Amino acid sequence: MRKIACKFYFMPLSATLLINCKDQRGLIAKITQFLKDNNGNILSLDQYVEAAGNHFFMRVKWDLNGFGIPREKIAEYFEHLIASKYKMEFKLYFSDILPRMAIFVSKFSHCLYDLLSRVQSGEWEVEVPVIISNHEDMRKVAENFGIEYYYFPVTHESKAEQEAAELEILKYHKVDFIVLARYMQVLSDDFVRNFPNSIINIHHSFLPAFKGAKPYHSAYERGVKIIGATGHYVTADLDEGPIIEQDVTRVEQHDSIQDLVRKGQDLEKVVLARSVFYHLQRRTLVYGNKVVIFKG
Amino acid sequence: MRKIACKFYFMPLSATLLINCKDQRGLIAKITQFLKDNNGNILSLDQYVEAAGNHFFMRVKWDLNGFGIPREKIAEYFEHLIASKYKMEFKLYFSDILPRMAIFVSKFSHCLYDLLSRVQSGEWEVEVPVIISNHEDMRKVAENFGIEYYYFPVTHESKAEQEAAELEILKYHKVDFIVLARYMQVLSDDFVRNFPNSIINIHHSFLPAFKGAKPYHSAYERGVKIIGATGHYVTADLDEGPIIEQDVTRVEQHDSIQDLVRKGQDLEKVVLARSVFYHLQRRTLVYGNKVVIFKG
Amino acid sequence: MRKIACKFYFMPLSATLLINCKDQRGLIAKITQFLKDNNGNILSLDQYVEAAGNHFFMRVKWDLNGFGIPREKIAEYFEHLIASKYKMEFKLYFSDILPRMAIFVSKFSHCLYDLLSRVQSGEWEVEVPVIISNHEDMRKVAENFGIEYYYFPVTHESKAEQEAAELEILKYHKVDFIVLARYMQVLSDDFVRNFPNSIINIHHSFLPAFKGAKPYHSAYERGVKIIGATGHYVTADLDEGPIIEQDVTRVEQHDSIQDLVRKGQDLEKVVLARSVFYHLQRRTLVYGNKVVIFKG
Amino acid sequence: MRKIACKFYFMPLSATLLINCKDQRGLIAKITQFLKDNNGNILSLDQYVEAAGNHFFMRVKWDLNGFGIPREKIAEYFEHLIASKYKMEFKLYFSDILPRMAIFVSKFSHCLYDLLSRVQSGEWEVEVPVIISNHEDMRKVAENFGIEYYYFPVTHESKAEQEAAELEILKYHKVDFIVLARYMQVLSDDFVRNFPNSIINIHHSFLPAFKGAKPYHSAYERGVKIIGATGHYVTADLDEGPIIEQDVTRVEQHDSIQDLVRKGQDLEKVVLARSVFYHLQRRTLVYGNKVVIFKG
Repeated sequence: MRKIACKFYFMPLSATLLINCKDQRGLIAKITQFLKDNNGNILSLDQYVEAAGNHFFMRVKWDLNGFGIPREKIAEYFEHLIASKYKMEFKLYFSDILPRMAIFVSKFSHCLYDLLSRVQSGEWEVEVPVIISNHEDMRKVAENFGIEYYYFPVTHESKAEQEAAELEILKYHKVDFIVLARYMQVLSDDFVRNFPNSIINIHHSFLPAFKGAKPYHSAYERGVKIIGATGHYVTADLDEGPIIEQDVTRVEQHDSIQDLVRKGQDLEKVVLARSVFYHLQRRTLVYGNKVVIFKG
Repeated sequence: MRKIACKFYFMPLSATLLINCKDQRGLIAKITQFLKDNNGNILSLDQYVEAAGNHFFMRVKWDLNGFGIPREKIAEYFEHLIASKYKMEFKLYFSDILPRMAIFVSKFSHCLYDLLSRVQSGEWEVEVPVIISNHEDMRKVAENFGIEYYYFPVTHESKAEQEAAELEILKYHKVDFIVLARYMQVLSDDFVRNFPNSIINIHHSFLPAFKGAKPYHSAYERGVKIIGATGHYVTADLDEGPIIEQDVTRVEQHDSIQDLVRKGQDLEKVVLARSVFYHLQRRTLVYGNKVVIFKG
Repeated sequence: MRKIACKFYFMPLSATLLINCKDQRGLIAKITQFLKDNNGNILSLDQYVEAAGNHFFMRVKWDLNGFGIPREKIAEYFEHLIASKYKMEFKLYFSDILPRMAIFVSKFSHCLYDLLSRVQSGEWEVEVPVIISNHEDMRKVAENFGIEYYYFPVTHESKAEQEAAELEILKYHKVDFIVLARYMQVLSDDFVRNFPNSIINIHHSFLPAFKGAKPYHSAYERGVKIIGATGHYVTADLDEGPIIEQDVTRVEQHDSIQDLVRKGQDLEKVVLARSVFYHLQRRTLVYGNKVVIFKG
Repeated sequence: MRKIACKFYFMPLSATLLINCKDQRGLIAKITQFLKDNNGNILSLDQYVEAAGNHFFMRVKWDLNGFGIPREKIAEYFEHLIASKYKMEFKLYFSDILPRMAIFVSKFSHCLYDLLSRVQSGEWEVEVPVIISNHEDMRKVAENFGIEYYYFPVTHESKAEQEAAELEILKYHKVDFIVLARYMQVLSDDFVRNFPNSIINIHHSFLPAFKGAKPYHSAYERGVKIIGATGHYVTADLDEGPIIEQDVTRVEQHDSIQDLVRKGQDLEKVVLARSVFYHLQRRTLVYGNKVVIFKG
């Protein structure tokens, strides 16, 4: 995709560590001392202790300019000097390696347009090599944005075979994570297992209310005064995955089901966009069935 | 209760009609012509057609000063001239007959204080002759506000007997409707049948999510990003009654269950207060399992 | 523009009347009787009396199928039979005459993409014959959506001349109303006079707070906890026009000015879209410096 | 005041440090190492760097049980070992020293009731020795809650004298901070100077919109679609003080000024309560004209 514009301010080359382990005394001191000792200037730091589980979570991002450890050695050093002692799990990211995102879509275009316009305008730092669909309807949109489009007409019988072909395409395009932009097919457990905590779905209700199909109809029937949308990571259990972001809007007395759909689609766009943004920024850490969201 | 102050602007003596029937051509013309013919000045009018069910709902409020039909004859005339022809159901209220509200409470005081302060300050036009509880804890609060307090220690075995005694008290005090201000006992179907669409409960979740006990704990476990509260009429099905009002607030990453409780209690107060306010203003009409809320 | 899809349900051919006049007894009866007498089935009706000013506002929409007055005669009959007697102002619209919208844009693409994707997906019933800009940056976007793009490099000296040329283009394309999608030039009073209550602007603050340039910077400096966006009709007084719609979002402690811009742009998109939607639906009526918004 | 109930979970004896200084490398490491070295278990930690000003802010709360420095020596040690080196400003609080709050009120009771019910129910850990008013109206409320009430009929001429008497009372009752619960007198600069960043006011608009008197009337006139309330510290400049918290609610088409007042009063209660809560929790730090709000 040719980017129309890039609005982004100059960002220094940086590294981001996502850490989690059992809570222990002195963790923050230890980690921040490690960065200080190697001349690392902290750009942002957020940490959080889950009171109930006594578990520690941290995200720290620092300027790589002048950092005392070569970037290809940072993970090794951190593992030996700190992580192994505290039984930490950690992930390390560099700001100049852009994540590669695939979009799955069916017939609704609102989320697809919203995602693509954010990418093309330079709002997000991400590559989108491929769009996959079980319909042909959105091919023209993909072409306008200059992105390859693959059509896989999934049926109950052909699902295993089609998903295998999709996985080939995703592998070929070195896709890191997938966004389901109102994709109307349920992915198999096998497929999901290939992208753990790396498939983001938008569900058009305030989960756990109104799981499953036709949530706007269910909301209308129940007479709720507020509707919502939920961005979550996909797991084997449908609509039960860890929640990344939610938002809501008011229903008015005279709103028909079509009004709920219209209002809801605006919610879907913004909730999906925020969910993807947090993921792109490495601000999400899945623990159990919950997502820790770090400050920027 | 001695009212501390009355902030209310002078309101003219008025009548309010709540109407519902199958949708038909000319209903609004017919009803507004009836008022005009009798010199009735409309103060507010709101109507609504449920698209799916083709059902018509209307609330109209008019100045009784100079109205051509004596107030004790209005219902009879409206029935004969209009309602019977269109197979309407209707209710008629007069602004100088204050509704009489009983409050049921257990051990949480936040909703009780909020309701009583609205009554004592003159914010609401309502009488509160009696507070009923299954504990003694709130007796002192009731006394400070000068309201009679009855203690009924309901147990599984004594429920039928205790509820019978409660109904006696309610009857004696000519109570029109009941507000459950975080009352922690489930009312029996028999009890509820005595107050159809006249018992307002506050449930501390965004229904239909997190029905039943401990919704804040369930919300915390599920990792939702938003919590809510729901004001609804009580029916035989627990937490399934028609919804009057809902509102929500954001959960932040570091919020513990105690933080959810604290934030939620502020929601409970305001959602319960709005629900009661709509009821007091005769702005609610229950149809099926939904509540039509009319504009002021 | 070629529409990719049309999601809209079948809508019957309908007429919409927007009415305002001094409040008088029997207005609703008179108007609804007029429709009933001519066999008009009311699809929606909303009315409102401004308490302070004793002014009456009404919007009524009815099915033209089987209506007793030919469509080209409705305005004349309504004027003679009703409007002239009550000194009403009214406007009449037919659902099969699509409004024609021009978009003015500068260098920010987010609102432009959002508007165009709503049009192309069939979410809105509107024609967009032309996009006008004081920069060349968005030409490629216009081309992708198949819309003519005109570049007018407005300067202080050339403004009068350039605006005259713009008015020619707008006239040639029979444009009914203009949407300023973050257009960064102030329109002259002369220009605005050509489109009374027909130019919709999005201002990136919660007006009347932070008028003028750089509202996100001002909001950051003042330390507000919430930012907003305002959709309004353009008048001669900058940022003082009648407000159509507003919405807000929370600022968090760690948000930089760039974060405010990012969050704000999502607000701008949705607030502008709602403002345009209300206008398209003929649900707005400007009275004094306020906009009455009718229910659907 | 006799507390009706105490809902609070057991909290360990803790100390809280609020720190700010110019941003420098290794600050977090240094501070957390100081706590670790003295066997301090961190209960919560939040820090924040103002990007524009390169200023560092931190709040850290730790368990005093087993801490290696006697509580009366902590400030001295921290000053010598850390603060002086980094040119830090800091404040130290202990959880068993309850802040003492005075309430100023005029004739509106809604905020007063809300504050007192939170105190009496044990929701807040605070002492309220005194209520001061320029009217007699709220004396009965104060008596019901068992709090001393002082009446100072302030006029333009008597202001200096009356404020001197008020300061005497506040001193006598060892008041730490003041809450203006819709107190309708402007405090003199001299008075304010006695309580720097320790007087909390609730303004009934979304500041900086609608400063000064009658904001609901101004909001109605301007036709805004959303109204707000603002909790802020009082400074010499009226309605210009640092903002602690804000919230908003929607205005509907049919809302009169009285409806705005009613909706607004519910906002005022909750925004004032949140502002006081943050202050009580030592989660506020005023820097320039902004308030840093730390996580719990």
